[in-house]
Amino acid sequence: MRPRFASFSNSGRQGYGLIREDGVVDLSVRFRPRFSTLREVIAAGALDMLAEKGQSAPVDYPLAAVTLDIPIPSPEKIICVGVNFPDRNEEYKDGQTAPSNPSLFIRFPRSFTGHDQPLIRPPESPQLDYEGEIVIVIGKEGRRIPESDALSHIAALSLCNEGTLRDWVRHAKFNVTQGKNFDASGSIGPWIVPYTDESQLADIKLETRVNGEVRQGDRTSRMIFSFRKIINYVSTFTTLVPGDVIVCGTPTGAGARFDPPIWLKPGDIVEVEADGIGLLRNTIADERI
Amino acid sequence: MRPRFASFSNSGRQGYGLIREDGVVDLSVRFRPRFSTLREVIAAGALDMLAEKGQSAPVDYPLAAVTLDIPIPSPEKIICVGVNFPDRNEEYKDGQTAPSNPSLFIRFPRSFTGHDQPLIRPPESPQLDYEGEIVIVIGKEGRRIPESDALSHIAALSLCNEGTLRDWVRHAKFNVTQGKNFDASGSIGPWIVPYTDESQLADIKLETRVNGEVRQGDRTSRMIFSFRKIINYVSTFTTLVPGDVIVCGTPTGAGARFDPPIWLKPGDIVEVEADGIGLLRNTIADERI
Repeated sequence: MRPRFASFSNSGRQGYGLIREDGVVDLSVRFRPRFSTLREVIAAGALDMLAEKGQSAPVDYPLAAVTLDIPIPSPEKIICVGVNFPDRNEEYKDGQTAPSNPSLFIRFPRSFTGHDQPLIRPPESPQLDYEGEIVIVIGKEGRRIPESDALSHIAALSLCNEGTLRDWVRHAKFNVTQGKNFDASGSIGPWIVPYTDESQLADIKLETRVNGEVRQGDRTSRMIFSFRKIINYVSTFTTLVPGDVIVCGTPTGAGARFDPPIWLKPGDIVEVEADGIGLLRNTIADERI
Repeated sequence: MRPRFASFSNSGRQGYGLIREDGVVDLSVRFRPRFSTLREVIAAGALDMLAEKGQSAPVDYPLAAVTLDIPIPSPEKIICVGVNFPDRNEEYKDGQTAPSNPSLFIRFPRSFTGHDQPLIRPPESPQLDYEGEIVIVIGKEGRRIPESDALSHIAALSLCNEGTLRDWVRHAKFNVTQGKNFDASGSIGPWIVPYTDESQLADIKLETRVNGEVRQGDRTSRMIFSFRKIINYVSTFTTLVPGDVIVCGTPTGAGARFDPPIWLKPGDIVEVEADGIGLLRNTIADERI
């Protein structure tokens, strides 16, 4: 099994470590101040070294003793790809053929919560919806990265429920910003898995379930814009740096596409699962104000 | 004159300080590690205290000895308001009346450079355009901030040239992300001026000039969405925190609106000026690859 690195809170303290079958090895107590978060571990290219140290160390806590946070607590950027699976472009029914460039939007870290934390439905909208997605975490700085070299810039993989308030996505003249950025309306996790070779992401099966019912299911081999193309395109305009998070798009089947739409409600359990990465689960809760 | 705080680089070192008529007082050498950047100064509500200390201290460097950076080097968020002056909505000629909510998009800090630094035209597009705007910097955390209390959350004011690659704004199906995020395609500065009372921002005259020719000119009293409304609306979905930057929208008259359009070219000098804040100036340069 590939090593799994997570960021977590434990007794009010934020740390990071290795998640093993037998529990959590706290690497932050062993590697601070050298690496303050997983972002600095990644920037130093030290995931392999920490995996080795963590495999041979004694477990510090049972998994139940920690609260998982989003894996990179303060990335410089979280960039999301908007329409990246074939059937999903057709869902928009606007007569347009497949787009020639990826649609991109940005989310703030605080719009996400960790695995097993409540996904928050705000009082402003009943239209909370799920979007299961694959996440790549950048490991090496680059600008105008050629597709041929793109995968070498990936440090790790993770999962995202790119939770969205549908009516707020079209609240204004342009841009989806507000509907994609309600605090704790989405999740990333449960952990990151180091990236090693292309076979690891070439044909990942990605599935989203609500209360056990499969709602979204597709494979990364069917993405309109490949991981290589996404990294190449994004790095055309912005310098990608270690710890940057790219959320790579969701398959067809979000709640908005049902007739009538099926929105998430308190108590619903959403699971996003992918071969070789893990299972990201959150329960919906109404915000307490 | 109101105190002016800037972030700067000096002999390869990043600092912050007070910009006086007679030079720069380096506050970072006096107040680190207590406040590592202006963001921490603002979070501590310490601008007034530092202004007082800085006024009575000896000057450390002449202004010419420092390179001005964007005032808050790593804000949690930079949120931009898309269409916020009356005539500008009409420029879109899409038959829509004034929008009921502000259009919002996000820029990364690295899409901006500081005052007097080159504004970069990338080889991917000849359509670099200017947008002069007023910037507010948040001083106090808040969510769902009522309009009546909104101004108390402002710590400081600044200026932005929200430089844009026009063809890349509509590169994909939705969202302006890529055309707004080319590295160093915009600028913020030259400094921040502490906010004290509403009269300071109620009717600011804002002007943008290219090579001395006035291209944009308007007053904040004519904004479609007031500063109060912007803070209220944005904080509906995301928690605003100290150091957050909101770029409040540009008047009519960007280069894209001329027929034919007038794009910025290397050597052009763009100045954004506002009463009581200052003058932000940048010269256009082609990117060296």
